[in-house]
Amino acid sequence: MHVLLPDGKRLELSAGATGADVAAAIGPGLARAALGIRVDGRLRDLQSEVDGGATVAILTSRDAEVIELMRHTLAHVLAQAVREHLVAEGAAPGDVRMGIGPTIEHGFYYDFDLPRSLTPDDLEQIEVRMRAIVAADLPLGRFTLPRVEALERYRTQGDPYKTELIEDLPEGETISFYRQGAEEGVGFTDLCRGPHVPRTGVLPPHFKLTTLAGAYWRGDESRPMLQRIYGVAFTSAEALEEHLWRVDEAKRRDHRKLGAELDIFVLDEDIGPGLPLWLPRGAIMVEEIERLAKEVEARGGYQRVRSPHLSKEQLFLKSGHLPYYEHDMFPAMVLDDVKYYVKPMNCPFHHKIFAARPRSYRDLPLRLAEYGTCYRYEDHGALMGLLRVRSMQMNDAHIYCTPEQFEAEFLKVIGLYLEYFELFGIDSYVMRFSKHAPEGLGKKYVDEGELWRSTEDMVRRALVAGDVSFYEADDEAAFYGPKIDVQIKSAIGREFTLATNQVDFVQPGRFDLHYVDEHGERKTPLCIHRAPLSTHERMVGFLIEHYGGDFPLWLAPEQVRIVPIADRHLPYADEVAEALRAVGLRAEVDGGNDRMNAKVRAAELYKVPYIAVVGDKEHDARTVSFRSRREEARNGIDLEAFTSHLREQVATRASNVTPIA
Amino acid sequence: MHVLLPDGKRLELSAGATGADVAAAIGPGLARAALGIRVDGRLRDLQSEVDGGATVAILTSRDAEVIELMRHTLAHVLAQAVREHLVAEGAAPGDVRMGIGPTIEHGFYYDFDLPRSLTPDDLEQIEVRMRAIVAADLPLGRFTLPRVEALERYRTQGDPYKTELIEDLPEGETISFYRQGAEEGVGFTDLCRGPHVPRTGVLPPHFKLTTLAGAYWRGDESRPMLQRIYGVAFTSAEALEEHLWRVDEAKRRDHRKLGAELDIFVLDEDIGPGLPLWLPRGAIMVEEIERLAKEVEARGGYQRVRSPHLSKEQLFLKSGHLPYYEHDMFPAMVLDDVKYYVKPMNCPFHHKIFAARPRSYRDLPLRLAEYGTCYRYEDHGALMGLLRVRSMQMNDAHIYCTPEQFEAEFLKVIGLYLEYFELFGIDSYVMRFSKHAPEGLGKKYVDEGELWRSTEDMVRRALVAGDVSFYEADDEAAFYGPKIDVQIKSAIGREFTLATNQVDFVQPGRFDLHYVDEHGERKTPLCIHRAPLSTHERMVGFLIEHYGGDFPLWLAPEQVRIVPIADRHLPYADEVAEALRAVGLRAEVDGGNDRMNAKVRAAELYKVPYIAVVGDKEHDARTVSFRSRREEARNGIDLEAFTSHLREQVATRASNVTPIA
Repeated sequence: MHVLLPDGKRLELSAGATGADVAAAIGPGLARAALGIRVDGRLRDLQSEVDGGATVAILTSRDAEVIELMRHTLAHVLAQAVREHLVAEGAAPGDVRMGIGPTIEHGFYYDFDLPRSLTPDDLEQIEVRMRAIVAADLPLGRFTLPRVEALERYRTQGDPYKTELIEDLPEGETISFYRQGAEEGVGFTDLCRGPHVPRTGVLPPHFKLTTLAGAYWRGDESRPMLQRIYGVAFTSAEALEEHLWRVDEAKRRDHRKLGAELDIFVLDEDIGPGLPLWLPRGAIMVEEIERLAKEVEARGGYQRVRSPHLSKEQLFLKSGHLPYYEHDMFPAMVLDDVKYYVKPMNCPFHHKIFAARPRSYRDLPLRLAEYGTCYRYEDHGALMGLLRVRSMQMNDAHIYCTPEQFEAEFLKVIGLYLEYFELFGIDSYVMRFSKHAPEGLGKKYVDEGELWRSTEDMVRRALVAGDVSFYEADDEAAFYGPKIDVQIKSAIGREFTLATNQVDFVQPGRFDLHYVDEHGERKTPLCIHRAPLSTHERMVGFLIEHYGGDFPLWLAPEQVRIVPIADRHLPYADEVAEALRAVGLRAEVDGGNDRMNAKVRAAELYKVPYIAVVGDKEHDARTVSFRSRREEARNGIDLEAFTSHLREQVATRASNVTPIA
Repeated sequence: MHVLLPDGKRLELSAGATGADVAAAIGPGLARAALGIRVDGRLRDLQSEVDGGATVAILTSRDAEVIELMRHTLAHVLAQAVREHLVAEGAAPGDVRMGIGPTIEHGFYYDFDLPRSLTPDDLEQIEVRMRAIVAADLPLGRFTLPRVEALERYRTQGDPYKTELIEDLPEGETISFYRQGAEEGVGFTDLCRGPHVPRTGVLPPHFKLTTLAGAYWRGDESRPMLQRIYGVAFTSAEALEEHLWRVDEAKRRDHRKLGAELDIFVLDEDIGPGLPLWLPRGAIMVEEIERLAKEVEARGGYQRVRSPHLSKEQLFLKSGHLPYYEHDMFPAMVLDDVKYYVKPMNCPFHHKIFAARPRSYRDLPLRLAEYGTCYRYEDHGALMGLLRVRSMQMNDAHIYCTPEQFEAEFLKVIGLYLEYFELFGIDSYVMRFSKHAPEGLGKKYVDEGELWRSTEDMVRRALVAGDVSFYEADDEAAFYGPKIDVQIKSAIGREFTLATNQVDFVQPGRFDLHYVDEHGERKTPLCIHRAPLSTHERMVGFLIEHYGGDFPLWLAPEQVRIVPIADRHLPYADEVAEALRAVGLRAEVDGGNDRMNAKVRAAELYKVPYIAVVGDKEHDARTVSFRSRREEARNGIDLEAFTSHLREQVATRASNVTPIA
């Protein structure tokens, strides 16, 4: 028998050779360093036999993927530590029962059925025991039993969980176990498919138990609730630190948490899930974003329109939403024997506006824009703060154009995305070209195979011509045409589709849209659907996390808080606020009874970008002394200079601030 | 027997005396001039017997109310003329059948069942015959018949309409008839209750037949369709002229006609009745009005919020909309076994925002504003253009205040109305104080008699204290409190309720809203609902008619149209447009192929306020020559001066323009 090495070399081995044998055959240094193997691309452990002819790579601590083996072994170490911990306080070993213990992203977990509930203190002590097991450098041995014997083993222990797991395996299957420790009864043995590292001593110290949670056995609410312990593990202290920071930061920046603390939005049980209410501070942010969109779109030659939030059924039958999209829509209302639906998209309304007047090629491209609120049925379980909702205020527009205009219009839309990304400092994004799948024609996709192909070709040509970086994905299109999904990653690593840019070759025909071309002939326009600023909900949710609530001045709901040092400075504080408001800045005076420092602290907690403190000196010189989240604190700045400085930041929608001169 | 005269004098008469006898008893001059009488406030004719003890006034042509008698008699004259007209062309008199012929506002109508359809030409000829009947000065005589004989009379004539009318009268009733002409068979006799003038010669010549329309017998679609002729009549040529001008102007200014011509809105059969689509030009007007509201409300200390368009049923159960307002709401959607409703009002959402945070007396008054779109079920037949719709974008706000703050806040709201009325030049308005009716408590109105009375007293005190002119109306309140309905009259005399201002003493309690007062005690705030700019739909509909489409500059969708004299002036035209756009003005260049005059005409038809014509002279001197709907045309005006002139008008939202210097 032989195996191939990654460099193509052929290595002769005796039958039944294991990964460890392969490593030893290459050299003693590698044999010592080996932690696992990769056989034809699949991760295995050193004890597993290799197949003749396979390509085998020996993995050492230099290979990133061994962390998978380590996390898996750490799950077993955790299980052993939990058993020891509870037995040490008097529990019978048989009362410490276990469910499953897989690896997950960043780490591992294990589910337990224990005689008592664990506490965070327990976690600390369990972690200490885990480190001791690592230090003990226990070897991991693999052995197998016939199914009948494996069942017998757990039945005698009275362990319902492992028994059930084995019962679910096919008759006649040989069952594998891993034992850490030199002999049965010492250390810990677990039903397991592997793979694992060869001994606990090679496990990295860069692990941590993070969370304790309840989890139903096999995810079934009718089965017992087990205690799940989560842990994370990395191969370096830096990676662990970075991860813990990120988790902490994600919690700190979570838009649900900040959205509540900064009074941006609330959800209300009486109104319904996924239907947020915008508090005054959130409404300011929404209106600032809307103002941005309107400015940019006015420059881009868009015209604004407005349409109702509901319509007769026949509109959505015509558009095709009803056959293809009904499961995502709110259900019908029946009025005067006619079904009405709340709109899930704005497009059919814009098509009606296109159709309301005769159009000539001279009117094209016609760009109709609307911040239309749509309603879609998202499953209750999928809802999440502002990021997954049922009411969506969409930065929508539809561009009607001739085929000749398509490429330029399509690239202009891509340009819009890039303009916004720059403004918001979004540098981590991907454009996904989402195409149809031929097997979905007539089901998920309108049944026009040829049109799908030609339109997808047209989009690809435009992307290539525009030198846009993208990748292609099958079976992800809209029902009426291919689309570009723009996926971004937020500052805390949350990835999501911000917005889409869709080509529609179906609806213009269904709505009998046409224009008269240069030769007096009736033609059907193409339609581009686009929403670069996504929905207000998703955009604000994203921006909260992206900025951690520390918004650039133009977006900050309250831009300046003025804090009088004593009550006698209140009139001047009001004067300062008035001067700021006169140029359109959002300024508030804290005229309450708290001490100055408490007021400054309150404004800081609210993440107000500028806090202007005014006392005698400031009053006499008509200045302010400010502290800022955005630049160094300064004293005695001329009120007019301060006002201009802030106004300039707002006018340019600056992210980075040049400190005041 | 005696009667009393208006001056209190007692007049002795013999039994059975008529109005004519009263007039004769007063004096022969009055007897000649008399046209009718008023008996205890009710209009009667001279032939009717007066009751002993009644107060009787003799009416002459000087009394405005005699026009009622005249219009009624003119209906009979019309009927006679129609019969003569058709008999003259060979119809049998029995084939000219008649329904009813009442007076209406400004005139009268009569319904006919005729052997053929009438045309506008017929109307002219019929009017000529009417004038001949007036000139013939036929006396009107009243006589009665027992019901049986009256029935017999029409049954022999084979007249189903009059027969049916009599059949509907109670058994044994004596039936009255009026005959114009000296004897039966000459002139015309009609089943009629009266009253009428004594002879056709006193009828004014200031009448006109205006319209021919179809009308079902007794308004019932299953009955025969009759031909209805409408006429108007006044006591002076001026009044007739004025009326005809007004009708013509109303047609010309009708917002449905202008709304289509000026591309402001469309209705679409597939979307549904009462759900207008705003075209780009309409959307601009809507956004201008919204900007106005936001500016004014920001100055007034309002904070903006945003709420979804639908909610779970329980919100509207809590608010009381469901028991009290359900017939005005769109029907439910059932989602995940929960009923959801599209919102008919924004208030419950604002209450939820109030409740979302603890509130102190220092936070009050809290003024939450939102241009929220509500949906209400208006009966299909009641829908009318933008003025009666099912989708309503409302200039809504809710003011939460303490009882001590109520008067000031309430009067500030009234002040807002007056500010807007001045801006739009609305000088004809009435404030109606709409109160509950005790018998509606627990049905139309929440069952809190004492609170109703005390709140109504509070409102009345505020109105009196603020020196606001108002009148009181019972049984017109909202279900949760009294309101002020602001009724305005448009330039063409259309009257409607523009907006309401409501006090709510019910919902704050139902939503458990409270604030902590100066003494640390929980108190329930009062709530004022207000919408001074009405809805976008009603406001724009009103403004179109109010201005006849000739909007002040700030509101005009297109403010300047630039017309190049020849193609070579196009670059300069674009430059002018850019200069105007740079300061936020809405300018378009007509770069089409039409001749200059045709372009100017097209811009005039579109009612563009300023048309700037540019040729060689203008190009060389960097000027424009303009024509305007708003001021005298001028040539060679410096481009910068022109821009500032327009910008100033927009900035001040001027209605009247000071011509450019």
